[in-house]
Amino acid sequence: MKLLALDTSNQPLSVALMDDDQLLAQTTVTVHPKHASYLQPIIESLMTSVHLDPEDLDRVVVADGPGSYTGLRTAVTTAKTLAETLNIELVGISSIAAIAANILTEGQLVTVLFDGRNDNVFTGLYRIKNGVPEPVIADQHTSFDQWVPQLVATGESVVVLGDLVNFEDRLADQLKSKLITLPAIMSIPQAQQLGRLGLTMTPVADVNAFVPRYLRLTKAEADWRKQHPEEDSSDYVEKV
Amino acid sequence: MKLLALDTSNQPLSVALMDDDQLLAQTTVTVHPKHASYLQPIIESLMTSVHLDPEDLDRVVVADGPGSYTGLRTAVTTAKTLAETLNIELVGISSIAAIAANILTEGQLVTVLFDGRNDNVFTGLYRIKNGVPEPVIADQHTSFDQWVPQLVATGESVVVLGDLVNFEDRLADQLKSKLITLPAIMSIPQAQQLGRLGLTMTPVADVNAFVPRYLRLTKAEADWRKQHPEEDSSDYVEKV
Repeated sequence: MKLLALDTSNQPLSVALMDDDQLLAQTTVTVHPKHASYLQPIIESLMTSVHLDPEDLDRVVVADGPGSYTGLRTAVTTAKTLAETLNIELVGISSIAAIAANILTEGQLVTVLFDGRNDNVFTGLYRIKNGVPEPVIADQHTSFDQWVPQLVATGESVVVLGDLVNFEDRLADQLKSKLITLPAIMSIPQAQQLGRLGLTMTPVADVNAFVPRYLRLTKAEADWRKQHPEEDSSDYVEKV
Repeated sequence: MKLLALDTSNQPLSVALMDDDQLLAQTTVTVHPKHASYLQPIIESLMTSVHLDPEDLDRVVVADGPGSYTGLRTAVTTAKTLAETLNIELVGISSIAAIAANILTEGQLVTVLFDGRNDNVFTGLYRIKNGVPEPVIADQHTSFDQWVPQLVATGESVVVLGDLVNFEDRLADQLKSKLITLPAIMSIPQAQQLGRLGLTMTPVADVNAFVPRYLRLTKAEADWRKQHPEEDSSDYVEKV
């Protein structure tokens, strides 16, 4: 199965082409957040480098959140458009799990923190089982102070990946010897890991209905809800 | 420090640009062995994507063997030329260690096998210490049958990466429950790991004198030595 994997959930952009579990080519760029202008040329250049045409693709795997709103929309829209126009399968994988998959230590607990500002994090807890991260605590948007005690409560050592700048002192204080930190590059998403996870997943049934898992309301939507407590906000976007 | 890392030791080609331990961009292509035609355009395209000029580089890190003769010469010649013309630092890292660096499990033994044909392997044994592979048994060219007993003798579990197709049954037979194999993508060199290792190494003193570590004579050189047992073959290349 020829597979294209895309992740632009956060500042890094990563694209991989795989043939089943074999990597054909991968590019990762971490420096510019304007994924909308870079994603398509990078896909095209990788396809050319491995002599694949769009029609050769069987499946597209996308990191579907949590992450930056614009980032998630860029990758998910690209993935949906490719799946729809090429009539190929679409699989969405947690952006947290995609990074946790950089760790291959069997049985290891791994958490990934995306800085959600105001001391909040997008996060989840996974255990590596048969080389694949399996959810232990579901992906969520929560305060850092509510998250760390749940890690401590496991009583196990935990690999902590992601945006650690604002958290590392407190992580060390609270997790003590149970904290495992790794070189910064282990926190960069690699689309080849995403593709590996997406290879065995059941594709989504309805490509058009597929949406990112933001796990938090946008500020605009939260404000609107406050001002319209009586209204059903499920169709918020259409109404505004 | 702005660093360029290159690995074309075997069929995969990997190039990374880093700013100290932060990845800026990386491309890995596994499908075509004609590295000489692809390496320079990929370096150029990555440099452009992160808005770096050649003059911005401070160091080039190259996987210097063992590996394919042509592959090693391609990357090492490119690295030497860049170091010489830009007057920047050059660091060589074992191609075996570069792949072992995909493993971050503290204390873990890791070996990497490059298939050297006729049941021979290029290999070495490393232990992950502070996130970095440290040599336990030096890189060498040896027969598979002489190598495996040395792994068994450690009494420890060993992650085995690399070209396993011709060896996996015998590895399982001999290492039994001590054998740890991982998804195929963990055996692909990633120049970001090479760059991470090369960041802290002392640069080579004499760029011009730097040569790949083939760890085996070419067939032509071996034949020549057989025919000229009396001659000093240290300058074999010049004489032929």
